[in-house]
Amino acid sequence: MRNIKILLMYDGNSYSGWQRLGLSEKNNSIQGILEETISSYLGEEIHITGSGRTDAGVHALGQVANFKSNTKIKLSALMEDINRKLPEDIRILKIEYVDNDFHSRYSAVSKTYEYRIDTGERQSVFSRKYTYHVPETLNIENMKKAAEYLIGTHDFKAFSTDRKDLKSTVRTIYDINIYKPLIKDNCHNQNELRIQVTGNGFLYNMVRIITGTLISVGEGKMPANDIELILKNKKREMAGITLNPQGLFLIKVRY
Amino acid sequence: MRNIKILLMYDGNSYSGWQRLGLSEKNNSIQGILEETISSYLGEEIHITGSGRTDAGVHALGQVANFKSNTKIKLSALMEDINRKLPEDIRILKIEYVDNDFHSRYSAVSKTYEYRIDTGERQSVFSRKYTYHVPETLNIENMKKAAEYLIGTHDFKAFSTDRKDLKSTVRTIYDINIYKPLIKDNCHNQNELRIQVTGNGFLYNMVRIITGTLISVGEGKMPANDIELILKNKKREMAGITLNPQGLFLIKVRY
Repeated sequence: MRNIKILLMYDGNSYSGWQRLGLSEKNNSIQGILEETISSYLGEEIHITGSGRTDAGVHALGQVANFKSNTKIKLSALMEDINRKLPEDIRILKIEYVDNDFHSRYSAVSKTYEYRIDTGERQSVFSRKYTYHVPETLNIENMKKAAEYLIGTHDFKAFSTDRKDLKSTVRTIYDINIYKPLIKDNCHNQNELRIQVTGNGFLYNMVRIITGTLISVGEGKMPANDIELILKNKKREMAGITLNPQGLFLIKVRY
Repeated sequence: MRNIKILLMYDGNSYSGWQRLGLSEKNNSIQGILEETISSYLGEEIHITGSGRTDAGVHALGQVANFKSNTKIKLSALMEDINRKLPEDIRILKIEYVDNDFHSRYSAVSKTYEYRIDTGERQSVFSRKYTYHVPETLNIENMKKAAEYLIGTHDFKAFSTDRKDLKSTVRTIYDINIYKPLIKDNCHNQNELRIQVTGNGFLYNMVRIITGTLISVGEGKMPANDIELILKNKKREMAGITLNPQGLFLIKVRY
Protein backbone atom coordinates (compact mmCIF):
# COMPACT_ATOMS: atom_id res chain seq x y z
CA MET A 1 0.00 0.00 0.00
CA ARG A 2 1.24 3.43 -0.86
CA ASN A 3 0.29 6.69 0.80
CA ILE A 4 -1.32 9.33 -1.43
CA LYS A 5 -1.69 12.99 -0.45
CA ILE A 6 -4.29 15.24 -2.06
CA LEU A 7 -4.84 19.00 -1.99
CA LEU A 8 -8.53 19.97 -2.13
CA MET A 9 -10.75 22.94 -2.88
CA TYR A 10 -14.44 22.89 -2.03
CA ASP A 11 -17.45 25.13 -1.73
CA GLY A 12 -18.97 24.08 1.59
CA ASN A 13 -22.44 25.51 1.04
CA SER A 14 -24.09 22.23 0.05
CA TYR A 15 -22.37 19.96 2.56
CA SER A 16 -22.74 18.80 6.14
CA GLY A 17 -19.03 19.46 6.67
CA TRP A 18 -15.84 17.49 6.21
CA GLN A 19 -16.49 14.58 8.52
CA ARG A 20 -18.41 11.49 7.57
CA LEU A 21 -20.66 10.69 10.49
CA GLY A 22 -21.96 7.22 9.85
CA LEU A 23 -22.00 4.85 6.94
CA SER A 24 -25.72 4.23 7.22
CA GLU A 25 -27.05 7.77 6.95
CA LYS A 26 -27.33 9.88 3.81
CA ASN A 27 -23.84 10.82 2.86
CA ASN A 28 -23.50 14.55 2.54
CA SER A 29 -20.00 15.07 3.90
CA ILE A 30 -16.96 16.01 1.83
CA GLN A 31 -15.00 13.09 3.29
CA GLY A 32 -17.83 10.66 2.55
CA ILE A 33 -18.26 11.83 -1.03
CA LEU A 34 -14.52 11.58 -1.67
CA GLU A 35 -14.36 8.10 -0.12
CA GLU A 36 -17.32 6.84 -2.18
CA THR A 37 -16.06 8.38 -5.41
CA ILE A 38 -12.47 7.18 -5.07
CA SER A 39 -13.41 3.72 -3.71
CA SER A 40 -15.83 3.12 -6.55
CA TYR A 41 -13.29 4.31 -9.12
CA LEU A 42 -10.42 2.21 -7.74
CA GLY A 43 -12.55 -0.80 -6.89
CA GLU A 44 -11.04 -0.95 -3.41
CA GLU A 45 -12.35 0.33 -0.10
CA ILE A 46 -10.32 3.42 0.75
CA HIS A 47 -10.41 5.58 3.87
CA ILE A 48 -9.54 9.26 3.71
CA THR A 49 -7.96 11.22 6.54
CA GLY A 50 -8.29 15.00 6.47
CA SER A 51 -6.05 17.59 8.14
CA GLY A 52 -9.05 18.50 10.25
CA ARG A 53 -12.81 18.78 10.20
CA THR A 54 -14.38 21.75 8.53
CA ASP A 55 -17.91 22.44 9.78
CA ALA A 56 -21.09 22.45 7.70
CA GLY A 57 -20.95 25.39 5.30
CA VAL A 58 -17.21 26.07 5.72
CA HIS A 59 -15.14 26.23 2.51
CA ALA A 60 -11.61 25.14 1.65
CA LEU A 61 -9.06 26.52 -0.75
CA GLY A 62 -6.34 24.23 0.54
CA GLN A 63 -7.63 21.29 2.57
CA VAL A 64 -5.15 18.40 2.70
CA ALA A 65 -6.07 14.74 2.99
CA ASN A 66 -4.42 11.37 2.44
CA PHE A 67 -5.40 7.78 1.74
CA LYS A 68 -3.66 4.46 1.16
CA SER A 69 -4.10 2.45 -1.99
CA ASN A 70 -2.59 -0.31 -4.08
CA THR A 71 -3.49 1.38 -7.35
CA LYS A 72 -1.07 1.26 -10.27
CA ILE A 73 -2.90 4.06 -12.11
CA LYS A 74 -0.74 7.12 -12.84
CA LEU A 75 -1.65 9.77 -10.27
CA SER A 76 -2.22 12.59 -12.76
CA ALA A 77 -4.72 10.42 -14.67
CA LEU A 78 -6.32 9.36 -11.39
CA MET A 79 -6.82 13.01 -10.42
CA GLU A 80 -8.39 13.92 -13.77
CA ASP A 81 -10.74 10.93 -13.69
CA ILE A 82 -11.84 11.52 -10.12
CA ASN A 83 -12.39 15.23 -10.72
CA ARG A 84 -14.73 14.34 -13.54
CA LYS A 85 -16.74 12.10 -11.18
CA LEU A 86 -16.85 14.49 -8.23
CA PRO A 87 -19.63 17.06 -7.82
CA GLU A 88 -18.62 20.35 -9.42
CA ASP A 89 -18.07 22.07 -6.04
CA ILE A 90 -15.29 19.69 -4.92
CA ARG A 91 -11.99 19.51 -6.78
CA ILE A 92 -8.63 17.83 -6.25
CA LEU A 93 -5.94 20.39 -7.09
CA LYS A 94 -2.84 18.28 -6.56
CA ILE A 95 -2.00 14.65 -5.93
CA GLU A 96 1.30 13.02 -4.95
CA TYR A 97 2.87 10.02 -3.25
CA VAL A 98 4.19 10.70 0.24
CA ASP A 99 6.08 8.72 2.87
CA ASN A 100 4.06 6.05 4.60
CA ASP A 101 4.28 7.85 7.93
CA PHE A 102 2.69 11.05 6.56
CA HIS A 103 -0.62 11.75 8.33
CA SER A 104 -2.72 14.72 7.16
CA ARG A 105 -3.72 15.58 10.70
CA TYR A 106 -0.82 14.56 12.95
CA SER A 107 1.92 15.69 10.57
CA ALA A 108 0.48 19.21 10.18
CA VAL A 109 2.55 21.95 11.83
CA SER A 110 0.22 24.86 11.22
CA LYS A 111 -3.04 25.82 9.56
CA THR A 112 -4.34 29.10 8.20
CA TYR A 113 -8.03 29.96 8.13
CA GLU A 114 -9.47 33.09 6.59
CA TYR A 115 -12.72 34.78 7.54
CA ARG A 116 -14.26 37.11 4.95
CA ILE A 117 -16.49 40.03 5.89
CA ASP A 118 -18.49 42.15 3.46
CA THR A 119 -18.53 45.66 4.96
CA GLY A 120 -20.53 47.20 2.10
CA GLU A 121 -23.78 49.00 2.87
CA ARG A 122 -25.50 46.19 0.96
CA GLN A 123 -24.02 42.68 0.77
CA SER A 124 -22.90 41.75 -2.73
CA VAL A 125 -25.31 39.20 -4.23
CA PHE A 126 -22.27 37.45 -5.70
CA SER A 127 -20.38 36.90 -2.47
CA ARG A 128 -23.38 36.44 -0.17
CA LYS A 129 -22.59 32.75 0.27
CA TYR A 130 -18.92 33.44 0.96
CA THR A 131 -18.96 36.39 3.35
CA TYR A 132 -20.54 37.61 6.57
CA HIS A 133 -22.21 40.99 6.25
CA VAL A 134 -21.29 43.81 8.64
CA PRO A 135 -22.70 47.02 7.11
CA GLU A 136 -20.67 49.25 9.41
CA THR A 137 -17.37 51.05 9.44
CA LEU A 138 -15.07 48.88 11.51
CA ASN A 139 -12.15 50.35 13.43
CA ILE A 140 -9.42 48.19 11.94
CA GLU A 141 -6.65 49.67 14.10
CA ASN A 142 -8.50 48.58 17.24
CA MET A 143 -9.11 45.14 15.75
CA LYS A 144 -5.38 44.80 15.11
CA LYS A 145 -4.62 45.81 18.71
CA ALA A 146 -7.10 43.22 19.98
CA ALA A 147 -5.58 40.57 17.72
CA GLU A 148 -2.15 41.16 19.30
CA TYR A 149 -3.44 39.83 22.63
CA LEU A 150 -4.47 36.56 20.98
CA ILE A 151 -1.09 35.83 19.40
CA GLY A 152 0.99 33.32 21.33
CA THR A 153 0.23 30.26 23.44
CA HIS A 154 -2.93 30.64 25.50
CA ASP A 155 -5.81 28.71 26.94
CA PHE A 156 -8.49 29.50 24.35
CA LYS A 157 -11.37 27.93 26.32
CA ALA A 158 -13.38 31.19 26.14
CA PHE A 159 -12.98 31.15 22.36
CA SER A 160 -14.46 27.73 21.77
CA THR A 161 -17.72 25.82 21.95
CA ASP A 162 -17.44 23.25 24.71
CA ARG A 163 -16.73 19.67 23.78
CA LYS A 164 -16.34 17.04 26.41
CA ASP A 165 -13.72 14.98 24.62
CA LEU A 166 -10.99 17.62 24.80
CA LYS A 167 -7.84 17.02 26.80
CA SER A 168 -6.52 20.55 26.52
CA THR A 169 -7.81 23.91 25.34
CA VAL A 170 -4.32 25.39 25.03
CA ARG A 171 -3.33 26.34 21.48
CA THR A 172 -0.75 28.59 19.83
CA ILE A 173 -1.70 31.34 17.40
CA TYR A 174 1.28 32.37 15.27
CA ASP A 175 -0.28 35.24 13.38
CA ILE A 176 -3.48 37.18 12.76
CA ASN A 177 -3.49 39.23 9.59
CA ILE A 178 -6.34 41.71 9.07
CA TYR A 179 -6.40 43.17 5.57
CA LYS A 180 -8.52 44.50 2.76
CA PRO A 181 -7.89 42.55 -0.45
CA LEU A 182 -6.66 44.84 -3.19
CA ILE A 183 -9.12 44.10 -5.97
CA LYS A 184 -8.75 46.52 -8.83
CA ASP A 185 -12.02 46.26 -10.62
CA ASN A 186 -15.25 48.11 -10.10
CA CYS A 187 -17.27 45.01 -9.40
CA HIS A 188 -17.97 42.83 -6.41
CA ASN A 189 -15.93 42.32 -3.26
CA GLN A 190 -14.42 45.79 -3.12
CA ASN A 191 -15.76 46.18 0.41
CA GLU A 192 -14.25 43.01 1.82
CA LEU A 193 -12.28 42.76 5.01
CA ARG A 194 -10.40 39.53 5.61
CA ILE A 195 -9.00 38.07 8.78
CA GLN A 196 -6.38 35.34 8.43
CA VAL A 197 -5.58 33.32 11.52
CA THR A 198 -2.59 30.97 11.59
CA GLY A 199 -2.07 28.54 14.44
CA ASN A 200 -0.86 25.10 15.40
CA GLY A 201 -4.44 23.90 15.76
CA PHE A 202 -7.90 25.21 16.49
CA LEU A 203 -10.63 24.32 18.95
CA TYR A 204 -14.24 23.80 17.89
CA ASN A 205 -15.59 27.10 16.42
CA MET A 206 -12.44 28.91 17.56
CA VAL A 207 -11.83 30.94 14.38
CA ARG A 208 -15.49 31.92 14.13
CA ILE A 209 -15.55 33.09 17.76
CA ILE A 210 -12.22 34.94 17.47
CA THR A 211 -13.43 36.79 14.38
CA GLY A 212 -16.81 37.47 16.01
CA THR A 213 -14.96 39.00 18.96
CA LEU A 214 -12.68 41.08 16.73
CA ILE A 215 -15.77 42.46 14.97
CA SER A 216 -17.22 43.47 18.36
CA VAL A 217 -14.00 45.40 18.96
CA GLY A 218 -14.15 46.91 15.47
CA GLU A 219 -17.72 48.05 16.10
CA GLY A 220 -16.66 49.74 19.34
CA LYS A 221 -18.77 47.41 21.49
CA MET A 222 -15.71 46.05 23.28
CA PRO A 223 -12.33 47.67 24.10
CA ALA A 224 -9.30 45.95 22.54
CA ASN A 225 -7.75 45.06 25.90
CA ASP A 226 -10.83 43.11 26.97
CA ILE A 227 -9.25 40.22 25.08
CA GLU A 228 -6.66 39.86 27.85
CA LEU A 229 -9.46 39.61 30.40
CA ILE A 230 -11.42 37.08 28.37
CA LEU A 231 -8.37 34.81 27.96
CA LYS A 232 -7.75 35.03 31.69
CA ASN A 233 -11.33 34.38 32.77
CA LYS A 234 -11.90 31.61 30.20
CA LYS A 235 -15.61 32.39 30.00
CA ARG A 236 -17.27 31.76 26.63
CA GLU A 237 -20.00 34.34 27.32
CA MET A 238 -17.44 37.15 27.61
CA ALA A 239 -16.26 36.66 24.01
CA GLY A 240 -18.15 37.68 20.85
CA ILE A 241 -20.65 35.70 18.81
CA THR A 242 -19.83 32.65 16.69
CA LEU A 243 -19.91 34.01 13.14
CA ASN A 244 -21.71 32.00 10.49
CA PRO A 245 -19.76 29.31 8.62
CA GLN A 246 -20.27 30.76 5.09
CA GLY A 247 -17.51 33.34 5.59
CA LEU A 248 -14.86 30.82 6.68
CA PHE A 249 -12.20 29.28 4.41
CA LEU A 250 -9.46 26.79 5.25
CA ILE A 251 -6.65 28.36 3.25
CA LYS A 252 -3.51 26.38 3.92
CA VAL A 253 -2.10 23.49 5.91
CA ARG A 254 1.66 23.42 6.40
CA TYR A 255 3.80 20.30 7.03
CA MET B 1 -47.25 59.99 -11.27
CA ARG B 2 -43.54 60.40 -10.73
CA ASN B 3 -40.78 58.56 -12.56
CA ILE B 4 -38.42 56.49 -10.37
CA LYS B 5 -35.07 55.13 -11.56
CA ILE B 6 -33.39 52.18 -9.87
CA LEU B 7 -29.91 50.68 -10.16
CA LEU B 8 -29.88 46.89 -9.75
CA MET B 9 -27.49 44.04 -9.01
CA TYR B 10 -28.53 40.43 -9.51
CA ASP B 11 -27.15 36.93 -9.71
CA GLY B 12 -28.84 35.49 -12.80
CA ASN B 13 -28.27 31.82 -12.01
CA SER B 14 -31.75 31.15 -10.64
CA TYR B 15 -33.76 33.19 -13.13
CA SER B 16 -35.29 32.87 -16.58
CA GLY B 17 -33.78 36.24 -17.50
CA TRP B 18 -34.85 39.86 -17.18
CA GLN B 19 -38.02 39.81 -19.20
CA ARG B 20 -41.41 38.83 -17.85
CA LEU B 21 -43.00 36.64 -20.48
CA GLY B 22 -46.60 36.32 -19.48
CA LEU B 23 -48.64 37.10 -16.41
CA SER B 24 -50.20 33.65 -16.27
CA GLU B 25 -47.09 31.46 -16.15
CA LYS B 26 -44.83 30.90 -13.18
CA ASN B 27 -42.97 34.09 -12.64
CA ASN B 28 -39.25 33.49 -12.63
CA SER B 29 -37.99 36.62 -14.33
CA ILE B 30 -36.15 39.47 -12.62
CA GLN B 31 -38.62 42.00 -14.05
CA GLY B 32 -41.58 39.94 -12.88
CA ILE B 33 -40.25 39.49 -9.37
CA LEU B 34 -39.50 43.21 -9.07
CA GLU B 35 -42.96 44.13 -10.36
CA GLU B 36 -44.70 41.75 -7.97
CA THR B 37 -42.62 42.80 -4.99
CA ILE B 38 -42.92 46.55 -5.57
CA SER B 39 -46.60 46.42 -6.59
CA SER B 40 -47.53 44.44 -3.51
CA TYR B 41 -45.52 46.77 -1.27
CA LEU B 42 -46.96 49.98 -2.74
CA GLY B 43 -50.47 48.63 -3.18
CA GLU B 44 -50.57 49.87 -6.76
CA GLU B 45 -49.94 48.06 -10.02
CA ILE B 46 -46.54 49.16 -11.27
CA HIS B 47 -44.78 48.31 -14.52
CA ILE B 48 -40.99 48.21 -14.70
CA THR B 49 -38.98 49.05 -17.79
CA GLY B 50 -35.39 47.76 -17.97
CA SER B 51 -32.49 49.14 -20.00
CA GLY B 52 -32.55 45.86 -21.89
CA ARG B 53 -33.21 42.16 -21.52
CA THR B 54 -30.58 40.01 -19.93
CA ASP B 55 -30.90 36.35 -20.89
CA ALA B 56 -31.48 33.43 -18.53
CA GLY B 57 -28.40 32.99 -16.37
CA VAL B 58 -26.85 36.38 -17.18
CA HIS B 59 -25.89 38.59 -14.20
CA ALA B 60 -26.01 42.31 -13.59
CA LEU B 61 -23.81 44.59 -11.54
CA GLY B 62 -25.47 47.72 -12.91
CA GLN B 63 -28.81 47.09 -14.61
CA VAL B 64 -31.00 50.20 -14.75
CA ALA B 65 -34.79 50.23 -14.69
CA ASN B 66 -37.57 52.71 -14.06
CA PHE B 67 -41.21 52.73 -13.03
CA LYS B 68 -43.93 55.29 -12.37
CA SER B 69 -45.69 55.59 -9.08
CA ASN B 70 -47.80 57.91 -6.93
CA THR B 71 -46.09 56.84 -3.73
CA LYS B 72 -45.35 59.39 -1.05
CA ILE B 73 -42.92 57.08 0.76
CA LYS B 74 -39.39 58.44 1.06
CA LEU B 75 -37.26 56.69 -1.59
CA SER B 76 -34.45 55.62 0.76
CA ALA B 77 -36.99 53.89 3.03
CA LEU B 78 -38.71 52.37 -0.01
CA MET B 79 -35.40 50.90 -1.18
CA GLU B 80 -34.61 49.39 2.23
CA ASP B 81 -38.09 47.89 2.59
CA ILE B 82 -38.12 46.42 -0.90
CA ASN B 83 -34.62 45.00 -0.55
CA ARG B 84 -35.82 43.16 2.56
CA LYS B 85 -38.67 41.62 0.55
CA LEU B 86 -36.65 40.69 -2.54
CA PRO B 87 -34.91 37.31 -2.87
CA GLU B 88 -31.33 37.55 -1.63
CA ASP B 89 -29.87 37.43 -5.14
CA ILE B 90 -31.57 40.63 -6.35
CA ARG B 91 -30.76 44.01 -4.78
CA ILE B 92 -31.59 47.63 -5.48
CA LEU B 93 -28.37 49.64 -5.08
CA LYS B 94 -29.69 53.13 -5.75
CA ILE B 95 -33.06 54.81 -6.19
CA GLU B 96 -33.90 58.33 -7.37
CA TYR B 97 -36.56 60.50 -8.99
CA VAL B 98 -35.89 61.35 -12.62
CA ASP B 99 -37.59 63.49 -15.28
CA ASN B 100 -40.82 62.09 -16.61
CA ASP B 101 -39.33 61.59 -20.08
CA PHE B 102 -36.50 59.35 -18.79
CA HIS B 103 -36.80 55.85 -20.28
CA SER B 104 -34.35 53.13 -19.14
CA ARG B 105 -34.09 51.71 -22.64
CA TYR B 106 -34.55 54.60 -25.06
CA SER B 107 -32.57 57.14 -23.03
CA ALA B 108 -29.50 54.87 -22.76
CA VAL B 109 -26.50 56.06 -24.81
CA SER B 110 -24.21 53.10 -24.18
CA LYS B 111 -23.94 49.84 -22.30
CA THR B 112 -20.97 47.86 -21.05
CA TYR B 113 -21.05 44.09 -20.70
CA GLU B 114 -18.24 42.00 -19.24
CA TYR B 115 -17.52 38.36 -20.01
CA ARG B 116 -15.41 36.47 -17.45
CA ILE B 117 -13.23 33.51 -18.39
CA ASP B 118 -11.46 31.21 -15.95
CA THR B 119 -8.23 30.18 -17.67
CA GLY B 120 -6.96 28.06 -14.77
CA GLU B 121 -6.12 24.43 -15.35
CA ARG B 122 -9.07 23.62 -13.12
CA GLN B 123 -12.07 25.94 -12.81
CA SER B 124 -12.38 27.50 -9.38
CA VAL B 125 -15.29 25.95 -7.49
CA PHE B 126 -16.11 29.42 -6.17
CA SER B 127 -16.47 31.17 -9.52
CA ARG B 128 -17.86 28.22 -11.50
CA LYS B 129 -21.26 29.90 -11.74
CA TYR B 130 -19.75 33.21 -12.80
CA THR B 131 -17.13 32.24 -15.39
CA TYR B 132 -16.64 30.18 -18.52
CA HIS B 133 -13.76 27.71 -18.28
CA VAL B 134 -11.03 27.72 -20.93
CA PRO B 135 -8.14 25.64 -19.52
CA GLU B 136 -5.69 26.87 -22.14
CA THR B 137 -3.15 29.61 -22.60
CA LEU B 138 -4.86 32.23 -24.72
CA ASN B 139 -2.88 34.52 -26.98
CA ILE B 140 -4.15 37.82 -25.61
CA GLU B 141 -2.25 39.96 -28.12
CA ASN B 142 -4.03 38.23 -31.00
CA MET B 143 -7.36 38.61 -29.22
CA LYS B 144 -6.71 42.35 -28.91
CA LYS B 145 -5.88 42.57 -32.62
CA ALA B 146 -9.11 40.75 -33.48
CA ALA B 147 -11.08 43.05 -31.18
CA GLU B 148 -9.80 46.09 -33.11
CA TYR B 149 -11.71 44.93 -36.21
CA LEU B 150 -14.96 44.90 -34.24
CA ILE B 151 -14.70 48.45 -32.94
CA GLY B 152 -16.76 50.97 -34.89
CA THR B 153 -20.10 50.88 -36.69
CA HIS B 154 -20.69 47.57 -38.48
CA ASP B 155 -23.41 45.19 -39.49
CA PHE B 156 -23.08 42.58 -36.73
CA LYS B 157 -25.47 40.07 -38.33
CA ALA B 158 -22.81 37.32 -38.18
CA PHE B 159 -22.40 37.98 -34.47
CA SER B 160 -26.03 37.47 -33.49
CA THR B 161 -28.67 34.81 -33.23
CA ASP B 162 -31.35 35.54 -35.82
CA ARG B 163 -34.55 37.18 -34.69
CA LYS B 164 -37.23 38.06 -37.15
CA ASP B 165 -38.40 41.22 -35.46
CA LEU B 166 -35.20 43.19 -36.11
CA LYS B 167 -35.17 46.24 -38.34
CA SER B 168 -31.40 46.61 -38.44
CA THR B 169 -28.38 44.59 -37.40
CA VAL B 170 -26.06 47.61 -37.52
CA ARG B 171 -24.59 48.59 -34.16
CA THR B 172 -21.63 50.61 -32.91
CA ILE B 173 -19.00 49.17 -30.60
CA TYR B 174 -17.06 51.93 -28.83
CA ASP B 175 -14.51 49.83 -27.00
CA ILE B 176 -13.38 46.29 -26.20
CA ASN B 177 -11.13 45.99 -23.19
CA ILE B 178 -9.39 42.65 -22.59
CA TYR B 179 -7.68 42.47 -19.21
CA LYS B 180 -6.67 40.29 -16.31
CA PRO B 181 -8.11 41.63 -13.06
CA LEU B 182 -5.38 42.44 -10.59
CA ILE B 183 -6.43 40.47 -7.55
CA LYS B 184 -3.76 40.45 -4.92
CA ASP B 185 -4.61 37.47 -2.83
CA ASN B 186 -3.64 33.86 -3.15
CA CYS B 187 -7.18 32.61 -3.45
CA HIS B 188 -9.72 32.28 -6.20
CA ASN B 189 -10.00 34.14 -9.49
CA GLN B 190 -6.30 34.70 -10.06
CA ASN B 191 -6.61 33.05 -13.45
CA GLU B 192 -9.42 35.21 -14.75
CA LEU B 193 -9.47 36.94 -18.08
CA ARG B 194 -12.18 39.54 -18.61
CA ILE B 195 -13.52 41.02 -21.82
CA GLN B 196 -15.46 44.28 -21.53
CA VAL B 197 -17.51 45.33 -24.53
CA THR B 198 -19.05 48.82 -24.71
CA GLY B 199 -21.51 49.71 -27.43
CA ASN B 200 -24.62 51.71 -28.25
CA GLY B 201 -26.70 48.55 -28.20
CA PHE B 202 -26.35 44.80 -28.69
CA LEU B 203 -28.11 42.22 -30.81
CA TYR B 204 -29.40 38.95 -29.38
CA ASN B 205 -26.42 36.90 -28.06
CA MET B 206 -24.00 39.41 -29.59
CA VAL B 207 -21.61 39.72 -26.63
CA ARG B 208 -21.55 35.94 -26.11
CA ILE B 209 -20.76 35.34 -29.80
CA ILE B 210 -18.13 38.10 -29.94
CA THR B 211 -16.37 36.67 -26.88
CA GLY B 212 -16.69 33.12 -28.24
CA THR B 213 -15.03 34.30 -31.45
CA LEU B 214 -12.26 36.14 -29.58
CA ILE B 215 -11.54 32.94 -27.66
CA SER B 216 -11.21 31.03 -30.94
CA VAL B 217 -8.61 33.61 -31.97
CA GLY B 218 -6.86 33.32 -28.60
CA GLU B 219 -6.72 29.53 -28.97
CA GLY B 220 -5.12 29.90 -32.40
CA LYS B 221 -8.09 28.32 -34.18
CA MET B 222 -8.80 31.48 -36.16
CA PRO B 223 -6.48 34.26 -37.38
CA ALA B 224 -7.26 37.75 -36.01
CA ASN B 225 -8.01 39.22 -39.44
CA ASP B 226 -10.77 36.67 -40.07
CA ILE B 227 -13.00 39.07 -38.16
CA GLU B 228 -12.96 41.46 -41.12
CA LEU B 229 -14.12 38.64 -43.38
CA ILE B 230 -16.85 37.52 -40.99
CA LEU B 231 -18.23 41.07 -40.70
CA LYS B 232 -18.22 41.37 -44.49
CA ASN B 233 -19.83 37.99 -45.19
CA LYS B 234 -22.42 38.34 -42.40
CA LYS B 235 -22.57 34.57 -41.91
CA ARG B 236 -23.26 33.37 -38.36
CA GLU B 237 -21.51 30.03 -38.97
CA MET B 238 -18.20 31.76 -39.67
CA ALA B 239 -18.08 33.28 -36.18
CA GLY B 240 -17.26 31.44 -32.95
CA ILE B 241 -19.61 29.68 -30.55
CA THR B 242 -22.16 31.39 -28.31
CA LEU B 243 -20.54 31.22 -24.87
CA ASN B 244 -22.69 30.18 -21.93
CA PRO B 245 -24.63 32.88 -20.06
CA GLN B 246 -23.03 32.27 -16.62
CA GLY B 247 -19.90 34.26 -17.55
CA LEU B 248 -21.78 37.37 -18.69
CA PHE B 249 -22.40 40.49 -16.58
CA LEU B 250 -24.20 43.71 -17.48
CA ILE B 251 -21.81 46.17 -15.88
CA LYS B 252 -22.99 49.67 -16.67
CA VAL B 253 -25.62 51.62 -18.59
CA ARG B 254 -24.81 55.22 -19.43
CA TYR B 255 -27.36 58.01 -20.04
